[in-house]
Amino acid sequence: MNSTEPTPPAAPASTPTGLSLREAASLLSGADMSSTKALPEHGIPAVLMTDGSNGLAMNLPDFSGKVPATCFPTSSALAATWDPGLVSRVSAAIAREAAAAGAQVLLSPGMNLKRSPLGGRNFEYYSEDPLLTGELATGFVQGVQSTGIGACVKHFVANNQETDRMRVSADVSERALRELYLAAFERVVAAAEPWLVMASYNKVNGSYVSEDSRLLTGILRDEWGFDGVVVSDWGAVDDRVRALQAGLDLEMPSTSGASDAQIVAAVEAGALNAEVVHRSAERLTELAARAAASGAATAGERHTTEPSAADLAITAAERSVVLLQNENGVLPLAPTAGVAVIGACAAAPRFQGGGSAGVQPKQPAGSIVDALSARHGGAVGYAPGYADDGITRDSARFDEAVAVASSVDVAIVVVGSPESAESEGYDRTDLDLPSAQNELVSAIAAVAPSTIVVIISGGPVRTEDWRTIVDAIVATGLAGQGVSLGLASILVGDTDPSGRLAETWPIELADTPSYLSFPGEGGHSVYGEGIFVGYRGHDRIGGEVAFPFGHGLSYATTEFGDLTVTASEHGWTVDVTVTNTSARAARDVVQIYVEAPDHAARRAPRALVGFAATAIAAGATTQVRIEVPRRALERWDEAAACWTLDSGTYGFVAARSSRDVVLRHEVDLVGDELRMPLTAQSTLVEWLEHPTIGPALIAAVTDADPSGRTTGMLTNPMAVLMIGGLPIHRLAVDAGNALTLDLLERVAGSNTD
Amino acid sequence: MNSTEPTPPAAPASTPTGLSLREAASLLSGADMSSTKALPEHGIPAVLMTDGSNGLAMNLPDFSGKVPATCFPTSSALAATWDPGLVSRVSAAIAREAAAAGAQVLLSPGMNLKRSPLGGRNFEYYSEDPLLTGELATGFVQGVQSTGIGACVKHFVANNQETDRMRVSADVSERALRELYLAAFERVVAAAEPWLVMASYNKVNGSYVSEDSRLLTGILRDEWGFDGVVVSDWGAVDDRVRALQAGLDLEMPSTSGASDAQIVAAVEAGALNAEVVHRSAERLTELAARAAASGAATAGERHTTEPSAADLAITAAERSVVLLQNENGVLPLAPTAGVAVIGACAAAPRFQGGGSAGVQPKQPAGSIVDALSARHGGAVGYAPGYADDGITRDSARFDEAVAVASSVDVAIVVVGSPESAESEGYDRTDLDLPSAQNELVSAIAAVAPSTIVVIISGGPVRTEDWRTIVDAIVATGLAGQGVSLGLASILVGDTDPSGRLAETWPIELADTPSYLSFPGEGGHSVYGEGIFVGYRGHDRIGGEVAFPFGHGLSYATTEFGDLTVTASEHGWTVDVTVTNTSARAARDVVQIYVEAPDHAARRAPRALVGFAATAIAAGATTQVRIEVPRRALERWDEAAACWTLDSGTYGFVAARSSRDVVLRHEVDLVGDELRMPLTAQSTLVEWLEHPTIGPALIAAVTDADPSGRTTGMLTNPMAVLMIGGLPIHRLAVDAGNALTLDLLERVAGSNTD
Repeated sequence: MNSTEPTPPAAPASTPTGLSLREAASLLSGADMSSTKALPEHGIPAVLMTDGSNGLAMNLPDFSGKVPATCFPTSSALAATWDPGLVSRVSAAIAREAAAAGAQVLLSPGMNLKRSPLGGRNFEYYSEDPLLTGELATGFVQGVQSTGIGACVKHFVANNQETDRMRVSADVSERALRELYLAAFERVVAAAEPWLVMASYNKVNGSYVSEDSRLLTGILRDEWGFDGVVVSDWGAVDDRVRALQAGLDLEMPSTSGASDAQIVAAVEAGALNAEVVHRSAERLTELAARAAASGAATAGERHTTEPSAADLAITAAERSVVLLQNENGVLPLAPTAGVAVIGACAAAPRFQGGGSAGVQPKQPAGSIVDALSARHGGAVGYAPGYADDGITRDSARFDEAVAVASSVDVAIVVVGSPESAESEGYDRTDLDLPSAQNELVSAIAAVAPSTIVVIISGGPVRTEDWRTIVDAIVATGLAGQGVSLGLASILVGDTDPSGRLAETWPIELADTPSYLSFPGEGGHSVYGEGIFVGYRGHDRIGGEVAFPFGHGLSYATTEFGDLTVTASEHGWTVDVTVTNTSARAARDVVQIYVEAPDHAARRAPRALVGFAATAIAAGATTQVRIEVPRRALERWDEAAACWTLDSGTYGFVAARSSRDVVLRHEVDLVGDELRMPLTAQSTLVEWLEHPTIGPALIAAVTDADPSGRTTGMLTNPMAVLMIGGLPIHRLAVDAGNALTLDLLERVAGSNTD
Repeated sequence: MNSTEPTPPAAPASTPTGLSLREAASLLSGADMSSTKALPEHGIPAVLMTDGSNGLAMNLPDFSGKVPATCFPTSSALAATWDPGLVSRVSAAIAREAAAAGAQVLLSPGMNLKRSPLGGRNFEYYSEDPLLTGELATGFVQGVQSTGIGACVKHFVANNQETDRMRVSADVSERALRELYLAAFERVVAAAEPWLVMASYNKVNGSYVSEDSRLLTGILRDEWGFDGVVVSDWGAVDDRVRALQAGLDLEMPSTSGASDAQIVAAVEAGALNAEVVHRSAERLTELAARAAASGAATAGERHTTEPSAADLAITAAERSVVLLQNENGVLPLAPTAGVAVIGACAAAPRFQGGGSAGVQPKQPAGSIVDALSARHGGAVGYAPGYADDGITRDSARFDEAVAVASSVDVAIVVVGSPESAESEGYDRTDLDLPSAQNELVSAIAAVAPSTIVVIISGGPVRTEDWRTIVDAIVATGLAGQGVSLGLASILVGDTDPSGRLAETWPIELADTPSYLSFPGEGGHSVYGEGIFVGYRGHDRIGGEVAFPFGHGLSYATTEFGDLTVTASEHGWTVDVTVTNTSARAARDVVQIYVEAPDHAARRAPRALVGFAATAIAAGATTQVRIEVPRRALERWDEAAACWTLDSGTYGFVAARSSRDVVLRHEVDLVGDELRMPLTAQSTLVEWLEHPTIGPALIAAVTDADPSGRTTGMLTNPMAVLMIGGLPIHRLAVDAGNALTLDLLERVAGSNTD
């Protein structure tokens, strides 16, 4: 501070927190890259936060690398399990490693919706569906917080692209925001009470989220009851004082005291109420107290590791695998089949994405070739087929691979998007695999007796060049250190494949609903598809997809039966039986969608309202019960600015994907009477159609103008076609009319319902 | 006025117009439904305005009907001529009838873009393309104003739907607004100087157009130089004073003095500058003077009619017909072929749409059956096939039609959307013909030796049920009173079909780029497809269409040759030859599209930049020259908020549709150096990539922090990937950094370019 400035006014004698203004302000930004500030004289310790969505991603103190940690499947891979319980076990394992390394907060889960398959950070997110995302994120938070440390859900909200991510405005309708982008966060805040919520970099409808009091306070705290700490994404604060006023408690990382000083100066200048500072400081104090308690609880475990974490990583990898296609029973591999594994990806498979969430794995992922050789009864050969970078053609390798493939029973071609295609910081530009890989698949399929394609990627890839000429397609996401062992277990049939797609695989990128508007330009990303994100849009448009949302095959066969829907206190209870009609143990996922009536507003043809992943022994039948809350059937009404349930017939369907309906049960519901108050801006038709006010209006007008001229204008069908949409006050402005603002007020006032 | 109110302050002694405030205000609203107010004591006469886009649509004085007038093709039909000259002749004929009926202003042309084929008023508009729209509207205005009366272009702007049209907000990007929706109006204002522009009902980005000073004054007057009168659409004024301040001169219709009083009161209350009132009054005075001059000029012609108008209506109908498909040479009809005309539409063809533009035709349109019988050499039978309403199945008629069709050489099935499907006031909900008609077509195609389908509609219809099983498809729009004679002339081959689609015919409604967001809800219509309207979107997505924009067949054969592109003073001159290689006289349309480089921003794969309709005698070659202004290749840059020409390779193509490229000529262009000024909100990468400021920044930071820490942060590639998108001032907030706001200012200040 400049020494010629006047002395600031004295801090108030006592404050809610017992802290001076300066002390309180000091708590509201980081001490460094990853810790909050301590105030030892007030008994407030620092809180250490660490990244880690698919494993602890903590930097070494000298930033020379990361603390070794168990590397689990990324969220996009884990989402294919449709299993919040498994996600919980994984996140608890991550949290224990984080706690052991001294952290009290894990900066996860990332839970943004996949508005476009091009999103650069999609591998860190779960799904294109808000219910699936919300349930899995809830599992993650519960797992983390069960260990005593805190979770931080991110990136709140509508941070659905990397392009210009630190400035871009997500221009999105309130309905899409409520039904999709906010809905996932709402669910996890209500169900799992995360310690922190991270405000994202982007703007929403022109306003930085970090400065948007409607989002950070009005919706998050007042509507949803969140009482934890709102932390900025690293560097997301544009104006510290505005952000604090909006409800952003903690700025990260450190600004070396500069933003604390801005806060103090603003209070001293009268531009900021000191209460706001103390309120946020109190939240930080509470966070520190929680963290201290967790530190005490986990202190005994420091420097230990969870013994089963490595095994869990393999189980999670197995469960992440999605069997997309399996013609001619090529999978599981016949026990003695001669197999060739083809593709350099198989020697060093990619198992996580780039960016701040990258993990230094404790155990190596190993080679798919080695893993398969160890499990498979027959011979397992290998040919790289393309260059080690995954991109470059290598004609010698290509020719060798084709020769090898023609001499075996089964060729397994391993392909995948290169590491550079998927990372925090930039978006993908297409869904294409490198052409060297696509050409190899086509060539192998032409010569091999059977061809299996294994795709390793953080999101959908284009399969159109060879989808119909290969026998089987297996998608393994970025599946962590267990990728090779997990995949081998599936291929040989030791484990039944049970993954289901958490996002649509389109035929062409251009088929995706957000195609024309993603990622925007000039600082704006217009969410042109509105609520029709992912399968909601694909199903609305009705075109073919490569593999639909929810799709995934099994080696077992199961049947759904006895679908019933009964009203419950807060919604509906859906019961369905699943019978394993095969001789193999299996896991199955029951997906419940609702087909809502669309007379009042456009709806997705089918929207996921519940699901359950369940294990079923061979020949067994299991009863699955799914609770569907009323909210799942409601829609956000733009005009009334509230949730509403439309009356009509709702189809509850049990399905194997958004497009594969097995059972259907219709329910007739009487919904809300959504009647907007009639105002001067309501249209003539809105007035006339009101059951009591409409007739009263006509009566009053007829009284006031016995000539019938005004009444005639208001009731002539052709005139109403032309003027019926006018805000009624415009008809009341004509001094020659019997329709006046006074009359409207009188009619509306005496007919309230 | 209430007598207890204080006396208002006296009007200023002298005003720019010589009118008192009250007199000036009185000019700013209508005298009744269609006239301005006169001030005889100041020599200001009233101006009579009338509707009329495809013919004079003037109400009789007692509103019992309309003044009989020549009924021309609607704008959507006329647009298929791609011939501004023909449009001029038609509009001049309409204007002469309007003048003869006493009007001095024709409230046309309607020129909104067809954002969706569902737009209820699309039949009154020209095209999905702004260049074609702008050129045809220019022709219309020039034709009208050549007769001495005034034209009024409408509805300005983004009034692209009927749903909630009087309140809805068109939420549209500035780029789409500039490149598409405003562009058409900009062209006609510059080229034809219409007397009036009509402000539309809707809002744009939340603000009523009628109250939007940026649109009505900033863009329309200041940027484009418009100096006429801005009139409201009828009832479009929501707040008279705000509208006047924004630049809306004339409110229509009459409010019986109520809004004049509001204006006076606002001036007296000091809320409105009297200058604003007088400026608009002056514009009205000028309009009245122009109108009076036109009245004098046309007085001699009153109560006369243009003798050739009826013939012109037939010519225009002929030119509007688009031959979409013609397999097996079924058209033109073999001279002695036995023909059955099938479909009740043929007996009483629809020839215009509903709403304020409806015309009472002077001459009846007659029956297609009669018209064909008179022209065709062979027998012409008739069977209605479906009920007279065009919608209802009639099994007796159906069976009869099938029997008739199986006994002739050629069945001509006439189908069309019913009158109720297309009107001002509401939007279409699908593209389907009545199923009774579709079923009939399929049944006829199965039995008739040859099947021709004639479609009468104001816009595209779905043809997928039978498109591939019929021989020929002929689209005649709502073609006015000449529909039957014009169509017959085409069918028998007296006239070569020369129409070209002015809008894409999609296979399915769901294929249209605006499908997911049209028509919006809750008061908002999000223009989610952005600039990708119509063929721009279809071509970008790349899916199949039924018939592309620009498509239309001929009985003759022509060839394009010798495409050259040369730079001109304001753009480029494109020359191409067209040779008629057949023995028939023909008309052809040369369409020039540009394929722009898309490295800086996404572009339509092909955008129309020029066209020419030309008649060519059998065997002749004609030279066509098309001037392409620089603007046609520019794009609107959202961030810089200006037009810019990107450097790169541009393909100029001569084509027969947006998807049928015949010739291509590449031009390498050096475009604008579009460099945004660097600010605190510019990103680190934007600073670093600047050719002079980037190195200067690094040098300055290195000087200021010899430790290299700050320089390292700014130049480490991994760090830049993470923080490079941050607005740079957020990096300057850290008190521990050498990067400060002062340093940034110094660096930027000493390196201006």
